[in-house]
Amino acid sequence: MKVSLEALNTSEKAEFTRLLDGLFEAAPWVAEKSFSSRPFATVASLHDAMMAAVRGRPRLDQIAFVSCHPDLAGKAARAGAMAAASVAEQAGLGLDQLSDDEFRRFEGLNSDYRQKFGFPFVICVRRQTRDAVLDAFERRLRNDVDAELAAALEEIGHITRLRLVDRVDGAGAPVVAGRLSTHVLDTYHGRPAAGVTIELFEVGQSARALLTQAVTNRDGRPERPLIVDRPLRIGTYELVFHVGDYFRNSGVTRDARPFLDVVPVRFGISEPEGHYHVPLVATPWSYSIYRGS
Amino acid sequence: MKVSLEALNTSEKAEFTRLLDGLFEAAPWVAEKSFSSRPFATVASLHDAMMAAVRGRPRLDQIAFVSCHPDLAGKAARAGAMAAASVAEQAGLGLDQLSDDEFRRFEGLNSDYRQKFGFPFVICVRRQTRDAVLDAFERRLRNDVDAELAAALEEIGHITRLRLVDRVDGAGAPVVAGRLSTHVLDTYHGRPAAGVTIELFEVGQSARALLTQAVTNRDGRPERPLIVDRPLRIGTYELVFHVGDYFRNSGVTRDARPFLDVVPVRFGISEPEGHYHVPLVATPWSYSIYRGS
Amino acid sequence: MKVSLEALNTSEKAEFTRLLDGLFEAAPWVAEKSFSSRPFATVASLHDAMMAAVRGRPRLDQIAFVSCHPDLAGKAARAGAMAAASVAEQAGLGLDQLSDDEFRRFEGLNSDYRQKFGFPFVICVRRQTRDAVLDAFERRLRNDVDAELAAALEEIGHITRLRLVDRVDGAGAPVVAGRLSTHVLDTYHGRPAAGVTIELFEVGQSARALLTQAVTNRDGRPERPLIVDRPLRIGTYELVFHVGDYFRNSGVTRDARPFLDVVPVRFGISEPEGHYHVPLVATPWSYSIYRGS
Amino acid sequence: MKVSLEALNTSEKAEFTRLLDGLFEAAPWVAEKSFSSRPFATVASLHDAMMAAVRGRPRLDQIAFVSCHPDLAGKAARAGAMAAASVAEQAGLGLDQLSDDEFRRFEGLNSDYRQKFGFPFVICVRRQTRDAVLDAFERRLRNDVDAELAAALEEIGHITRLRLVDRVDGAGAPVVAGRLSTHVLDTYHGRPAAGVTIELFEVGQSARALLTQAVTNRDGRPERPLIVDRPLRIGTYELVFHVGDYFRNSGVTRDARPFLDVVPVRFGISEPEGHYHVPLVATPWSYSIYRGS
Repeated sequence: MKVSLEALNTSEKAEFTRLLDGLFEAAPWVAEKSFSSRPFATVASLHDAMMAAVRGRPRLDQIAFVSCHPDLAGKAARAGAMAAASVAEQAGLGLDQLSDDEFRRFEGLNSDYRQKFGFPFVICVRRQTRDAVLDAFERRLRNDVDAELAAALEEIGHITRLRLVDRVDGAGAPVVAGRLSTHVLDTYHGRPAAGVTIELFEVGQSARALLTQAVTNRDGRPERPLIVDRPLRIGTYELVFHVGDYFRNSGVTRDARPFLDVVPVRFGISEPEGHYHVPLVATPWSYSIYRGS
Repeated sequence: MKVSLEALNTSEKAEFTRLLDGLFEAAPWVAEKSFSSRPFATVASLHDAMMAAVRGRPRLDQIAFVSCHPDLAGKAARAGAMAAASVAEQAGLGLDQLSDDEFRRFEGLNSDYRQKFGFPFVICVRRQTRDAVLDAFERRLRNDVDAELAAALEEIGHITRLRLVDRVDGAGAPVVAGRLSTHVLDTYHGRPAAGVTIELFEVGQSARALLTQAVTNRDGRPERPLIVDRPLRIGTYELVFHVGDYFRNSGVTRDARPFLDVVPVRFGISEPEGHYHVPLVATPWSYSIYRGS
Repeated sequence: MKVSLEALNTSEKAEFTRLLDGLFEAAPWVAEKSFSSRPFATVASLHDAMMAAVRGRPRLDQIAFVSCHPDLAGKAARAGAMAAASVAEQAGLGLDQLSDDEFRRFEGLNSDYRQKFGFPFVICVRRQTRDAVLDAFERRLRNDVDAELAAALEEIGHITRLRLVDRVDGAGAPVVAGRLSTHVLDTYHGRPAAGVTIELFEVGQSARALLTQAVTNRDGRPERPLIVDRPLRIGTYELVFHVGDYFRNSGVTRDARPFLDVVPVRFGISEPEGHYHVPLVATPWSYSIYRGS
Repeated sequence: MKVSLEALNTSEKAEFTRLLDGLFEAAPWVAEKSFSSRPFATVASLHDAMMAAVRGRPRLDQIAFVSCHPDLAGKAARAGAMAAASVAEQAGLGLDQLSDDEFRRFEGLNSDYRQKFGFPFVICVRRQTRDAVLDAFERRLRNDVDAELAAALEEIGHITRLRLVDRVDGAGAPVVAGRLSTHVLDTYHGRPAAGVTIELFEVGQSARALLTQAVTNRDGRPERPLIVDRPLRIGTYELVFHVGDYFRNSGVTRDARPFLDVVPVRFGISEPEGHYHVPLVATPWSYSIYRGS
C-alpha cells in the first residue's frame, strides 16, 4: 500500500524516515536530511530534496554511498543478499537468470569496473534492456572517476525516482513513464488500416524477444499504446506490421508472394521517458515511417 | 562455346538436331520437329517453334515427355544419374546438399506428387529460391491433372529458354534476366547518400543468407545493380541499409543508439524477369521505400 | 432559443406542428404526419419520421412539394420573397451578392432546369462551395426526371437535418458536421513542427478565398481543427504551409530561396460530414502528405 | 559560327583579340592580357585566365571596367545603345518589355545603386528569373562597396562564361547548364505512372507563367528533362501534376471531385548549374516529393 504525501508531510521525523526506508540503498540519512525541507508541495520536490541531500555530501561520502549498491547480476544476487527492491528490478531484466557465459561476462565487467573505480557499477535497470546495460557498462568503463561518480549519482536519481513513485501517492509525481504507440494508415484506400496485426520485438545482439502483439482498431490504432505507464527501456526494437495479410483480406492482392508482406521497422529508443509514436503509412507497393507525435 | 543462330539456320537437319541436343530433356524430336520452321529470325522465335512442337503433341505424348524429367532433389541426383544441365541447375539452389530432413521432405513431396499425377514435379529452379520451390510444390499438389500438365509445360518453357540463351548467340534473344537495384536519397541534406553500406539477404522460413553487399557511390547507387543478367529467384528478400553509420559519418547524429540505425526492408519477388528498383528515402528520423523504376 | 425533444414529445399536435414550422419549406403537413410516430427517442429518429412522411407521398405530391422551394440565387432572393432559413443559407454562400454575370449564369441554369424538370433546382447549399453548386447544377441537368426527383429529396433531407439540429435539443442528434484538421511533423529534427503558419484557401475556378489561418502549437497542430462543428463544403481547398519560415527560424536554412518555402497542398472534399486529416511530414528537401485519421 | 579553341591557341595576338571581341564588355585588354597564357588546354582554363586578368587589375581599374556595363532594363536598352549580347540577354528575361511601372521600379533601383556604388548594377540575367533579379537588386543594395565590387565581378564571370561557351568550341567547356527533371511513380499499382500531364510554371510575386508542358512516358518520365542545356534561372517554380486525370483514366477513381486532382509542387531553384530531380510518388490519397538525383 502506498503512503500519501500528506502523511509524509505531517509525520514525526522517525516515522518519516521509516516510511522512506530502503528507497535509497542502505542510506537512512538521505531521508533524515530532507526532513527539514518539509512540507513538500509535490512528490517531485520530495525527490529533489533527497537528491540534493546526496549531492551536498563530500565526495568521499558519495563514494561510500555508491559503494553500498549491489553488483549487477553479481554474487549478491545469486546468494540472495540483496535488498528487495534491487532483487525485483534486476529480475525484471532477467539478470537473475543468466547463462553461465553471461554470468561470467557480467562478473568480468563488474570486476574490471570495481578495480578501476573502487565502487560498483550502478545503473537504473528499469530504464534499460539487457543489451543497453552491457553497452553502458563498456562505455562507462572508459570514463574517468569524476565523470563516473556523476553518472552513478544520475542513475541513483533514476532508480529512486521510480521507487518513490511506486511508494508515495500525491500531487506532482515526477515523470517516470514513457509511451510507445503506433498507427497504420492505408493510402491505397485513403483510410485507417483496421485489423492489422502488429508485433513488437526487443532486438538484442544475440536474440530477439516478442514483447507484445496487437491488432489495429477502426481508427488504425491498437486499443492502447504498446508500452505505457513505465519507462521505455533503452534499446533496439522492431515493430512488425502484417500488411500483406491486411491487403489480402481487403481483396487488394491475391499474390502468393506480394511485394510487401511482413514489414519490419527497426528503431532505437534512447529516452525512457519520451513519447515515441511510430506510424506506418502503406500501400501494397510502398510505405513510410517516421517518428511522429 | 556458343553456337550462332546463323549456324543453326544453315546446317543440315542432323547437325541442327545435334547442336540442340539436351536442350529438351531426352526429347530430340523437339529439335527435329522445329527444323522445318527454319530460318529463325530471332532466338526467341526458335524457342517459340520448339515449344509449339511440344504443345502440338497429343496429351499422352506430353505426359511421357514430362515423365522423362528427373525428380527434384531426388534419388537420381544422389545417384549421379541426371543430365548435366539439370545437375548444374539443381546444384545452383543447393538441392544437391540437403540435410537428411530436407531430403526426406523432398522425397515425400516427390512421392505424393508422382502418386497423384503419374509424372515428376518439374519446375525451373533457376527462377526460384529453395523456399519458393517448396511453396510451389505444396501449392501445385492441389491442382488437377490438366492444370498441372499445363504448369509443367510452362516450367519446361522457362527451363529451355534459359538453356537456349546460354547456348545460342544471335539476334532477338528472349528476355530471361531480371534486375534488382536500389538508390539511397538523403532528404536531411537534400542529396544522394554516398557511402551507405547495403546488404541483400535471401530470407527463408528457417534461415537467411547474405547474397551480396555494396556501398553507394556519389549518386547514391551501388556501382552496379544488386542482381542483374539472370532471373531474379522468386522469394523473399531483405535489403539492409546502414543509415545510422551514414548519418554518424556525416556528423548529423552522435547518439550511441540513434532512432534509425540499421534499416531492414523486406520484400517479395514474384517476377523473375522483372525490374525491381527499391529506393530508400531517409532522414535520421524517417524513411520511405517503394517499388520504383 | 432551441426547443427540447422532450417538449416536442409531450406537446399537443398544434403546438408540435407550430414548433417545427418552416423546417420543411411551405409544408406543415410533414410535421403533422410525423406526429403519430411520437415519442421520438432521438432527434435523428424525428428527422427520419419526417423524411418518411415525404417519401410516402405519391410522386405528384412530391413534385408539388419540391416545387415550393425557391430558386437558387434567383429572383425571389433579389426580391426578398424567400423564407428566412433559405435567405440565411443562400447568403452563407454569397449567393445574394453575385455579379451580374454570375446572376445571369444562375438564371440560365435555373431556367433550363425548370424547363426540363418542371420544378426548381434544390440543393443543400450549406454543404457546398459556390463552385460545387455550379458543378452539381450542370451535372444534375443531365439526369432524367426520376433520378432528379430522388436527388432533390435527398438534398431536402440534408437541408432539413441541418435545420433540425439548429432548432431542437436532445439525445441522438444526427451527424451534420465534418472536421478538417492538420498536423506538421518535422523529420529533420524528429519532432512536431511548432510555430508553422498554415493558411486554408477555398479554390474556385475563377478565384481563391482565404478561409482561415492558424499556427501550430508544440504538438505540431493548430489549437483547434481548421473546420469543425459544421458540414465541410464540397469543394476544392488548398492548405499552404510556411515551412521555409519554420526551418529558417530553426536555424536549419539561411538560403534566401530555399528548395521548399511555401508548400501548397491542394485537395478535394466530397464528404461534408467526413473527417479529413491532412498532415504534412517535411524536411527542408522533401515532404509527404496523405489523408490521415 | 563558333571558333575553335585550336584556332585561338594558334592565331596571332591581333586575331586572338578580335576573335574574343565583345566577350568582356568594352574591354579588349582582357583578351590581350590572357594571350600570353596560351595554349589553353580547355575552354574553362581560357575563361579562368581572362578572369584572372580582371582580378589582377587595381581596384580603380576594376571599377572603371564594371562601369562600362549597361544598366539593367535602363535607358540604354530603350534607346538601343547597348551591346548585342547584352540586348539578347536582357530580352531573354523580358526586360525589354517592362510596363511603365516596372520600368520606373528598375530606374529607381538603378539610380539608388549608382548613387551608392558609383557603378551600374551587374547581374548575369541568363541565370535569373525577373523576380530573382529584383530580389538580388534589393539585397545587394545593402552591401558595402567592397562586397559589391566582388559580387559584380562574380556576375561578370557568369556572364562571360556563358558567352564563351556560346562562341568557342573545344575540350573542357566550363559547366554552364543545369537540369530540371521529374518522374512520377504510382504506388497504388506499384509502377511508373504513364500518361500524366505535367506543367511547369515560373511563379513570380505578381504573376505565373507556363514554361513548358509534358506527358510522362511508360517509364513515368517526360521524354526529356523539363529544362536542360542552359542555366536554371534562380527563382520559384511550380510543377503541376495532373494525377486526378491519371487515376481516373486507370479506372481507380470515378469521383467527380477526388481527394487529389491537380497536385502543385512549389520549389525554389538557387543553383543554376545544379541538377534538380523532383519526383512525385503518388496514390489517389497521398503523395510525397523530394529533391532526388
